[in-house]
Parts: sequence; structure tokens; C-alpha cells
Amino acid sequence: MSTVTYSYSLLANRLRDIDALEGISGLLGWDEMVMLPTGSSDSRGKQKEALAGVIYDKKTDPVLGELLKELHESCAGLNEVEQVNVELAYKNYIRATALPKDLSQRIAALETEGYHAWIAARGASDYSKFAPVLQEWVDISRRKAALIDPSQETYNVLLDEFEKGMTATRIDEIFGQLRVGLVPLIANIKSKGTAPDGSLLRGKEFDTKAQAALCEVIALDLGFDITKGRLDVSVHPFTGGTGPTDVRMTTRFKAMDVTEGLTGAIHETGHSLYEQGRNVYPDWEGLPVSKALSMGVHESQSLLWERMVALSKPFSHYLLPKLQTSFPDLVPTSTTPEALYGAMNLVLFPSLIRVESDEVTYGMHVVLRYEIERGLVEGKIKVEDVPAIWNAKMKEYLQTDVEALGGDAKGVLQDVHWSAGAIGYFPTYTLGAMMAAQIFQAAEAALPNLSESIAKGEFAPLKTWLNENLHCKGSFYRNADELMTAVTGRVLDPNIYLSYLNNKYTDLYKL
Amino acid sequence: MSTVTYSYSLLANRLRDIDALEGISGLLGWDEMVMLPTGSSDSRGKQKEALAGVIYDKKTDPVLGELLKELHESCAGLNEVEQVNVELAYKNYIRATALPKDLSQRIAALETEGYHAWIAARGASDYSKFAPVLQEWVDISRRKAALIDPSQETYNVLLDEFEKGMTATRIDEIFGQLRVGLVPLIANIKSKGTAPDGSLLRGKEFDTKAQAALCEVIALDLGFDITKGRLDVSVHPFTGGTGPTDVRMTTRFKAMDVTEGLTGAIHETGHSLYEQGRNVYPDWEGLPVSKALSMGVHESQSLLWERMVALSKPFSHYLLPKLQTSFPDLVPTSTTPEALYGAMNLVLFPSLIRVESDEVTYGMHVVLRYEIERGLVEGKIKVEDVPAIWNAKMKEYLQTDVEALGGDAKGVLQDVHWSAGAIGYFPTYTLGAMMAAQIFQAAEAALPNLSESIAKGEFAPLKTWLNENLHCKGSFYRNADELMTAVTGRVLDPNIYLSYLNNKYTDLYKL
Repeated sequence: MSTVTYSYSLLANRLRDIDALEGISGLLGWDEMVMLPTGSSDSRGKQKEALAGVIYDKKTDPVLGELLKELHESCAGLNEVEQVNVELAYKNYIRATALPKDLSQRIAALETEGYHAWIAARGASDYSKFAPVLQEWVDISRRKAALIDPSQETYNVLLDEFEKGMTATRIDEIFGQLRVGLVPLIANIKSKGTAPDGSLLRGKEFDTKAQAALCEVIALDLGFDITKGRLDVSVHPFTGGTGPTDVRMTTRFKAMDVTEGLTGAIHETGHSLYEQGRNVYPDWEGLPVSKALSMGVHESQSLLWERMVALSKPFSHYLLPKLQTSFPDLVPTSTTPEALYGAMNLVLFPSLIRVESDEVTYGMHVVLRYEIERGLVEGKIKVEDVPAIWNAKMKEYLQTDVEALGGDAKGVLQDVHWSAGAIGYFPTYTLGAMMAAQIFQAAEAALPNLSESIAKGEFAPLKTWLNENLHCKGSFYRNADELMTAVTGRVLDPNIYLSYLNNKYTDLYKL
Repeated sequence: MSTVTYSYSLLANRLRDIDALEGISGLLGWDEMVMLPTGSSDSRGKQKEALAGVIYDKKTDPVLGELLKELHESCAGLNEVEQVNVELAYKNYIRATALPKDLSQRIAALETEGYHAWIAARGASDYSKFAPVLQEWVDISRRKAALIDPSQETYNVLLDEFEKGMTATRIDEIFGQLRVGLVPLIANIKSKGTAPDGSLLRGKEFDTKAQAALCEVIALDLGFDITKGRLDVSVHPFTGGTGPTDVRMTTRFKAMDVTEGLTGAIHETGHSLYEQGRNVYPDWEGLPVSKALSMGVHESQSLLWERMVALSKPFSHYLLPKLQTSFPDLVPTSTTPEALYGAMNLVLFPSLIRVESDEVTYGMHVVLRYEIERGLVEGKIKVEDVPAIWNAKMKEYLQTDVEALGGDAKGVLQDVHWSAGAIGYFPTYTLGAMMAAQIFQAAEAALPNLSESIAKGEFAPLKTWLNENLHCKGSFYRNADELMTAVTGRVLDPNIYLSYLNNKYTDLYKL
């Protein structure tokens, strides 16, 4: 065994040890949301702190640093996958060790302070209570980025944490095209569209236990492997667990709106299928190359199943008889798949709140946030001007008058993310949505009978195609564009997403 | 702050950190039994190994050793509780660091090898397949004991791991008295007793969901705090969780025997009440003094509720209407509390299998194992002679002919414990049973209306008395006799247990 090979094996052992401990951390998080007795939150806090301390020590261990430096400088004899592991681990090590202790402590404290300030500000609809926190996050983000990689512009470093290898220049290009196509479509739908009838699925009481049972059947039909995961109910739906053989998905259901639980469950199933599918090669296991490439790619998988599949016409053929069986009194036998498809696909105006918005308007909520947060860290937007800019963009992009509809509480203060310093995260949602459309288009080309399969409830061809072409690639590629090229033959192209929306909603809204 | 006080605070931080990590270890164990997807056992194995490695490193950290040595040598300025923490932690450190790596590794390997050898031997009812494992455990146990404390005799060191401060001499005394009283009682019941009618609770199908619902009601009535714990179902009932604010109790139910699930659930509730009750003083939290004193004391709490409460006459007054409501077709309205009491308290002959035996015969199963395992580690019994000795003692103590009833598979090979090297563990069961009787007697003296309360389903007085007099004492006392003296006014006295059994079964079996 050469020195390099030996060093690599030492590195892999350390990385797998950290991975196992992070799996435990995932269990603590899941358990806290789903199982923990109410009286044990203090004790759970101490357990999380103890484990986080252990993981931090292991991730910043100077011996790990030495190994990584050695392998980063000379990796002759390592294969391509091993080299990717070295580079990813090296990057993680730089990130983990970049911040001085006082800054790390301030960040941890500001996450809590920021959360409480945000709650208070939103409660009073008073941005001035939140502005100092946002200002401090902007300052900290700049300092942090400079410490991690002074050769890059600030926003790129922040972005890279969530969307590996993505740059602000590339997002400008992508979101620029998106804005040009999407703003007129939104305006058109609002001014000229005829909305489908949504009453089939809303405003009556759908028993939540029956919803949960239905969604379990659907998740299993889509391909969720129950021997490598769990389905539970929690207040906030999420996909977690300890790793690819233990993917724990949670859902929630509202009696008065069956679409929310349904699309939520299918969304989480998409995340789960990616997680369960990224564990194919034994020598990748527990190593950085096996992890999801980015938040955007993860979101592409949830949105592919939620939007491209569940909100499609063929899916309504599969879903309708199931809905009728689950809710015989609420979904009449006379219902057509077309009516169900219409009811599933409403564009909701005013589009005030991001998390309640539909697939058409969602993208512009994200573009707005991206433009503001990038302006902030580049110093082109002042913290005090954010509400005015927010409200102006809401009018321009989404035809929505924030001031008339509730002010800052329903505007700039609606999202929790900035209160925790998550700058660079929002773009991943819409990048994921665009990837989903492009990946689905490639799947349609590769699987000529895809629509018919979906209509019949045969999802295995699509799942297998995703497993083989995307899930198993993990973090092998350097960025989403490289992955998209491998999977679809070209880099991310927002026009595919725009065409999909234009075609679908021109038809649905009779434009 | 003095040097000693400062060192103590450093020690306490380290011990609390280890405690939090052990809490996580408890969660991994619970989750594996109750929640883990079947396909994730390999991955869980790696997580457990990674965490065990972290805990081992922290428990054997030489810096911890230095702190402990310093405080063990001079603890002037520490209060009594702090001194107890130092001594317990010092002892744990000695135990954790005593074994050389090769021995620890051999022990870990032999646990697995031993398990498989035991399965094979029991399957073939062939002791010779198991004898080499037992021989190795005997050798390892001697070596281990000599490394931990060469000043003590082997069995005392082994015992101390499970029953703090107990000695073989003291057990000889206690079990000697027990044997003298119990063997004739068993013989008497067998030869002259008239068994109560047990058919009320057996041989018909009790819906397991209804059993689970009933047992949940009972656990909550007994005082289980659901804000600091969970109730779930698992294949093997146990009480686990992450700590006193997160006590997770599991149960299982058999359709054809309602007593098994019922007494099992009440048994685990007893363990849970002790765990939930040992967390009273904030400055004890997460420190050794707050832990359960011993396995025997823990068992005293499960058995107190199972035997002294649930198998009592007053309890049948509380239980009967609940059983009738849960199983209206199986428990006729004409049933009397006396009939229920009788059906709950059968002595089962032949008494072949320890875990299926009743409160009368159970004790002698344990005495038999104690005598053999002590003989083995003292070199007075040879491994090859164990089956013959086992079978002879089964005849003498329990009137049971092992050879006629299935041979070694149903005899010496029936228990898993020795296959994992657990020598010194069996006595705790019966020590616990005797403590339960003595503690309950003290509770009766302190709570004059205890029987009436139990009959009415008012368990709070007993639970509160146990909380205040026993649970909150944790590991403050050096051994069970000291705790018994504090709680009941005298050291463990087997005659209390013998009188309880004699009185109860003379009446029940019309002796």
C-alpha cells in the first residue's frame, strides 16, 4: 500500500466516523420533532450540545487537517472518486476551521437572538425591531466569507454552502431569463385567466386519518422503501433520519385542504427517494461523494415528484379512484380526471406569502429575495431600505400590494431564514424547480411511455431512471450544471421551465 | 473558588458530558428496538460503534483520571454528595481503564461468538457446544476481576458491577436463609396445595389492542408521567430512553394470556417510576449520585409494583371493573375480586423455565444459578460438570426433572446471560424481589390506608412515598443494605419476603 493510499484509508475512516455521528445527530433531530416527550427538551438540548461538540472536535481535528493537506497537495494513485472525496473533505475542513471561536460563538448566539427578534418584529409588524439583527448578519456574512475564501466574492462563498459550485454571476443569468418570462405570465394569468374550479378539494372536511392512509399508499406506490425508512406525522413535515438506509419522512394533514397534505407528502417522498437512492456503491458509503450534491438538487427531486408528476394530467387518472375510495362522500363518482387536474392547479392571488404560493408565482418570490440579499451583502442595498424595496418588487413581480395586505409582517418579515443568517439559501428553491422541469423533460425523452405509466400508477420506470441517472451520482460532480449536463445533456436552462409553465397555464387558464 | 472546588466543577462538566452522550446511546438502543427500519441495522451498528468509541475515549481520558486521582486523594471542601460523586466516578474510571485493549477486544468478540454458540447449543440441546464459551468466560472473568480490584475475591468484583457494594458472603447469608424457607414452601404447594382457578385470564383470546389500551390507562393511574416518557410496543418489553425526563417503556401483549402483558406492563411501570423519580435535585443532575443504586434496587421497584401491588387482593378490586369494561365477553359480570386475585396468582409446575416462573419458584431459579456461577469462578465447579449439578439442584429446589422435560435446552442452556459473560447478574433479580417485600412493608407502616387506596385505584400515596424515600436517593448510599436501612430501618431481611410468600400462598393454596 502506497503512502497516499494509506493516508486515504486513514482519511476515509475518519470521514466515516464523522458520518456515523452525523447520522446520530439526524436521529436526535427526527426524534425531537416526532417522539420526544414534552418535558424533555432541556435534556435533549444538552444531548445535542454534547454531540455537536464531539462532531466539531472531529471535524476540526488538526490530524484530519494534516491528512487532508497532504492528500490535497498530492493525490497521485487515487482514483477519481477518491480525489473527489479528498477535495470535498478539504473544502469542508476549511469551512469548519475558518472561523475564530468568538465569531462562531456570536453566530450561535445570534441565531437564538435573531429568532426572538424576528418573532417580536413580525408580531408587531415592525421591521425596525428586526433591522439590527439583519445588519449584524450582513456584517457577519461578509466577515465569514472573507475568512473562508478571500479570493471569492462574498455572495459566492455564502451560496456555495447551500449550492455547491454555484456563482452569483450564473444565478444572475438564470434568474434574469426567468424574470423576463415569468413576470408577464403572472400578469397575464391574473388579468386574463379563467381559474379552474378548486372547490372539489377545498372547503370541506377531509378526515386526516384517511388522508394519512392515502398518502402512505401513494408514497409506497411512488417507490418509498419502507425497509429503509419510516413514515410518521409531525407538526412540520420534513425528511430526515440517520442516512440512506434510514430515511424518515414526516407529513401533516389539514382537514379543510386535502391538496396541502397530498402535495406535501409527495414532495417529501421525492426528497426520500433521492436519499434512499444515493447509497449504491459500497466504497462511497459514508463519504462526501455519496452525499446529495446541493440543496437545489435535493429540491429538484422533491419538486419533480410534486409538480412534474403529482400536478400533471396523467397523475389525476391514477389519483382520482384513490381519492374516491378514501372520501366517497366528498369526491363524487361523476368527477373527471380533468376536473381533478384543474382543482390541483390553482394560481392563487394575491400571491403574498412564499410558502403558500403556487408553482407559477413561487419563482418570483425567490428572485425578489435573492436580489435583496445579494444587494445587502454587496453593500448596494441598505438594511433600512429593505422594506421599501421588498414592497416595490412585490408590486412589480407579483402584482401584490404588501402595504394594503398587512404590511411588513406579511412582507419582509414573513420568512424565518434571514433571522438565522441563512443568506444564499433562497435561490436553491427555484434552481431546484427549474432543474426538476429539465430533468423530467429528459426522463420523458428516455421513457417514451412515461405519461401512460404515471396514469396507470406505474412509477418504477421513472424512479429507476432517476436512481440510475441522478441519485447514485451523489456529489461526484462539481456543481449542478455539471450534473445537469450528465443527466440531461446540457446545463440548467430556465427556458425549459418557462415553456413548461407557459404551456400548462395557457391551457389551464385559457389564456 | 478553591482548587478542589474548581477541580470538582471540571469533573462535573466532564461527567455531565458523558451522561448526555450515554443518554444518546439510550436513544439509539430504544430506537433500534422500536423504530428502526429493518434494512438499517448495519448502519445502526456503525453509529453505535462510533458513539461507543467517543464515550470510551471520554471515560478513559487521562485528564479525567488525573482530576479523579487528585479529588480522590483530597476532597476537603466538598460536601457529602460531591464526595459520593468523586468516589463513584473514581470507581467507574478504574473499571473503564482496567482492561488492556486485547482483553476488551476479546470480550467484545466473545459476546457475539458466545451468543451464536449458545443459539446453536440450545437448538441441538447439546451443552458440549457451549462449554468452551463458558470456560472462556470463567477465565476472562477471573482475569478481569484481578485487573479491576486484586484485593477482592473474584465474585465480589463481578457482582459489584451489577449490585454495588454487595458481597458473596452477604449473598450466602441471604440466599441461605431464603433456601431454608423457600424449598419446603415450594414442596408443600406442589404436594398439598389446591390451585386457584386460572381459566378466567387464560386460554381465550384477549384482543391485544384492548390489552394495550388497558395497560396504558393502568400505567398512567400508577403514576407514569407521560410528559417525561413514552409508552410503545416492542418484541421484548423494556424500560429505556435517554434519562429521567425521557423514560421510554415498552410492552408486548399475547392474545391467549392477558396476565403476561398486564404484569409485564406494570413491571416496566415500576422501573419507569424509579427512573422518573430519581431526578429531583438540580445539582445531582447528570452525575453518578443521581443514578439508580443497583440492578437489584431497580428490580425492587419493578417487582414492588408488579407483585406487592398488582398481584395483591386490593388491586383486584381496582382491576376487575377495568377488565370487565375492556373484555365484556371474556370477564363476566359475576366475577368476584377474589376470583380475579386467585387467577392472577398461580404457582406453575413443573417450574422449568426461569422467565416463565411465578413469584414463589422464581427465587430458587436464581439461587441455583448463583451457586453454580460462584462455584465456577472460584474453581469449585468444573464447566463440564455444570449440567449434572444444574439438574440435581432443579430436583432438590424445584422438584423438577430437567432430563425428562427436554434436557439441557430446557435446563442449563435456557438463559442467554452466561453466553454474554454476565456473571454476577442473576442474584440481583431475587435481591430485588426481597427488597420489594421489605420496602412495601415499610410503606404499609407509613401509609395506614394503603390497601384501601390501592383498592380504589389511588396510587399517588405509594408513588409519592417511594419518590421521597427511595427514588430521589439515587446512588447516595454505598450499597443496598444502607439504602434499605434508610428506607425501612434495617438491612435486607429475607424473612420478610418469606413471611409474605408463606402467608399469601398458605391462604391461596389452602395449605
